[in-house]
Amino acid sequence: MRFAVAQSGGPTAAINASLAGVYEAVMELSRKYPNDERLRSNVVYGVRHGIQGLFNEKMINLQEALSNPHDLALLKKTPSSALGSCRFRLPDAEEDDSLYHKIRAALDRYQIDAFLYIGGNDSMDTVAKLSKWLKEQGSHIQVIGVPKTIDNDLEGTDHTPGFGSAVKYLNMTLQEIVRDCSVYQVQSVTIVEIMGRDAGWLTASSCLLRTNGEISPNFIYLPESDFTVAQFLSDVRDALKINHRVICAVSEGVRPPDADLFRSGENDEFGHAYLSGIGKYLEKQVQNHIGCKVRSVELNIMQRCSAHVCSFTDLCEAERCGKQAVLLAVAGESGKMVSMRRGEFYDIVYDNIPAEEAANKVRLFPKKWITPAGNQICDEAIDYFMPLIQGEVYPEMSHGMPMHFQF
Amino acid sequence: MRFAVAQSGGPTAAINASLAGVYEAVMELSRKYPNDERLRSNVVYGVRHGIQGLFNEKMINLQEALSNPHDLALLKKTPSSALGSCRFRLPDAEEDDSLYHKIRAALDRYQIDAFLYIGGNDSMDTVAKLSKWLKEQGSHIQVIGVPKTIDNDLEGTDHTPGFGSAVKYLNMTLQEIVRDCSVYQVQSVTIVEIMGRDAGWLTASSCLLRTNGEISPNFIYLPESDFTVAQFLSDVRDALKINHRVICAVSEGVRPPDADLFRSGENDEFGHAYLSGIGKYLEKQVQNHIGCKVRSVELNIMQRCSAHVCSFTDLCEAERCGKQAVLLAVAGESGKMVSMRRGEFYDIVYDNIPAEEAANKVRLFPKKWITPAGNQICDEAIDYFMPLIQGEVYPEMSHGMPMHFQF
Repeated sequence: MRFAVAQSGGPTAAINASLAGVYEAVMELSRKYPNDERLRSNVVYGVRHGIQGLFNEKMINLQEALSNPHDLALLKKTPSSALGSCRFRLPDAEEDDSLYHKIRAALDRYQIDAFLYIGGNDSMDTVAKLSKWLKEQGSHIQVIGVPKTIDNDLEGTDHTPGFGSAVKYLNMTLQEIVRDCSVYQVQSVTIVEIMGRDAGWLTASSCLLRTNGEISPNFIYLPESDFTVAQFLSDVRDALKINHRVICAVSEGVRPPDADLFRSGENDEFGHAYLSGIGKYLEKQVQNHIGCKVRSVELNIMQRCSAHVCSFTDLCEAERCGKQAVLLAVAGESGKMVSMRRGEFYDIVYDNIPAEEAANKVRLFPKKWITPAGNQICDEAIDYFMPLIQGEVYPEMSHGMPMHFQF
Repeated sequence: MRFAVAQSGGPTAAINASLAGVYEAVMELSRKYPNDERLRSNVVYGVRHGIQGLFNEKMINLQEALSNPHDLALLKKTPSSALGSCRFRLPDAEEDDSLYHKIRAALDRYQIDAFLYIGGNDSMDTVAKLSKWLKEQGSHIQVIGVPKTIDNDLEGTDHTPGFGSAVKYLNMTLQEIVRDCSVYQVQSVTIVEIMGRDAGWLTASSCLLRTNGEISPNFIYLPESDFTVAQFLSDVRDALKINHRVICAVSEGVRPPDADLFRSGENDEFGHAYLSGIGKYLEKQVQNHIGCKVRSVELNIMQRCSAHVCSFTDLCEAERCGKQAVLLAVAGESGKMVSMRRGEFYDIVYDNIPAEEAANKVRLFPKKWITPAGNQICDEAIDYFMPLIQGEVYPEMSHGMPMHFQF
């Protein structure tokens, strides 16, 4: 079989492990089934810059590019999308299918049997639309999605590859910020703004610090919590009566109804509003209404590309999801997204769902795990998050700095 | 001998290694010289919250607090000042020596022979003033300074403990940011704001990425560089003609004469102006005058407390500097700061200088290592920085998160 694989959307620390998983599965099946006419001479190409790259770029023969085992090992530990990425939405085929024809032509040119797309809920929209159109056109080309996002907001899967590593980075960094903020005797408020456009999974995971008897944030505010700026100020005031330093974890996507300025007003290519600045906004509120020392910290893009503190569990799962996509293609599936189901003691079963069930949808953090006051996370959530960050992955070093793979 | 040790100023990832070094040296000398009446029953106390803690807090008997070897090992890897810190300037004794009397009384109460102060150039002012006053008063109490700052701006020492770990964190993080910014095909500018109030050492060290054939920032702007906002915009415009993504490392302390807004206008306890926001300011300039995708990233306090990516060399040196302070005290010195001298192949010799030579002074990044255009760092600087980040230190983990020591 001939495969093409591409990466899409925002980078993560684990997205290249999924790419490596695809490559390894394709190669392994060839080795295992030397008498299977279909599998014995498998080929896999990498597509640069997501689905957009199909229009205008040469594909990379991964057997050639990854023939050195050392390169493959480095690839797994390299953050961000090694093939490049794109943010691009396929128009509805009923309205205009000219791009669909171009994509098909590109895939046909390389005689591709299965196109694997590693991405989030926008990418699953592409998987669903493209597989449907190809079937309707009578093409045999299959399309399979591999989940990826640090937001953990994909429907139909217990969690998403990339999330565990982001959780690990977040908690390590928060723990260090707590140490840093605790040294002075003066009253201080520290507001940490954490990624999560619509769903607060990553921000919520900061409750994990409790496990080691560490100081977790005094308050955790999610887009799913009902809270106002007035309540935030009242929370902080109360906490300052007991603690000299107060730490708040705030999701970038929170929308307190009484905040008058927290959107930049611009939209990205998908029409999502760019969110930024809630941390700075709340900092100003503390400055103006409480008046103590206050600092806001934006963890910014470091949250999604910090491969130097990956979760081993996350990288293994990301790789395995890539392999599962190959298995699904070999089984003749199309329009599916790989998913993970969790057993009683976290035994992960690799399964799949129709990609359209994940497309354009957002899985929110469960309300039942938010305290009634809307400013903390319940202990039950710890059992959910804890397995995701287990195990360390240390970067390979040269001259005291990590080595990354680049195509 | 009876010692007291305190930590002061901003936290670093290595300041607790110096504290551990003090403790270990004191204990080791007792063990080594059981027949030396002065050394055989050494005692060492930890003072909470710097020199301010002497006025109102109980000291911690470190033999009791650190008797468990596991705790001592954890302490070395714990970021930020485990004893707490302060930002406090001693008034001139000629004007008012009432605080000096209080300090002496506190030290006498615990029969302290030597007070060791781990800190930066403000703390060395305390060391110089206090030792001078104690001598004048006929007190036998000695005062020794141990250098510490991620800014690397202390006079009289090749570099400062804490700096190497900050450099390592900065370069790892920048490398990941470069990966993250390189995935899309659209033009983008990323501005990374790096700590350094008056001196650009840390920002300059981002040239290290060149060593592994990595992409180092297209432009590096320091407080020591002569550059204007107009030149910055022209630099970025030129670079965008060749690269689709441009990365600028900017020291928080840069003062382009044509920037109309980059100080918050407030001063800290030492009269230093709070600097913040140059990254956001330059982001706005790119938005308004160039108009491409632009993002500013502030590495914020993570730069000074990221113990999860320490430099082994830095931690060892920090510990050794603490030990050297004990040796100086045993040798009867006072008013001195431990310093490091570098040999041809980086063999560090532990030496000392009068604390007043470092007090309140700022050692700037050498102009000769800034390119004539004022926007890049010369290769010679790489030889200076490279040894400081060698060797990895991995945190001890529990439940997938690092363990920290707390008194």
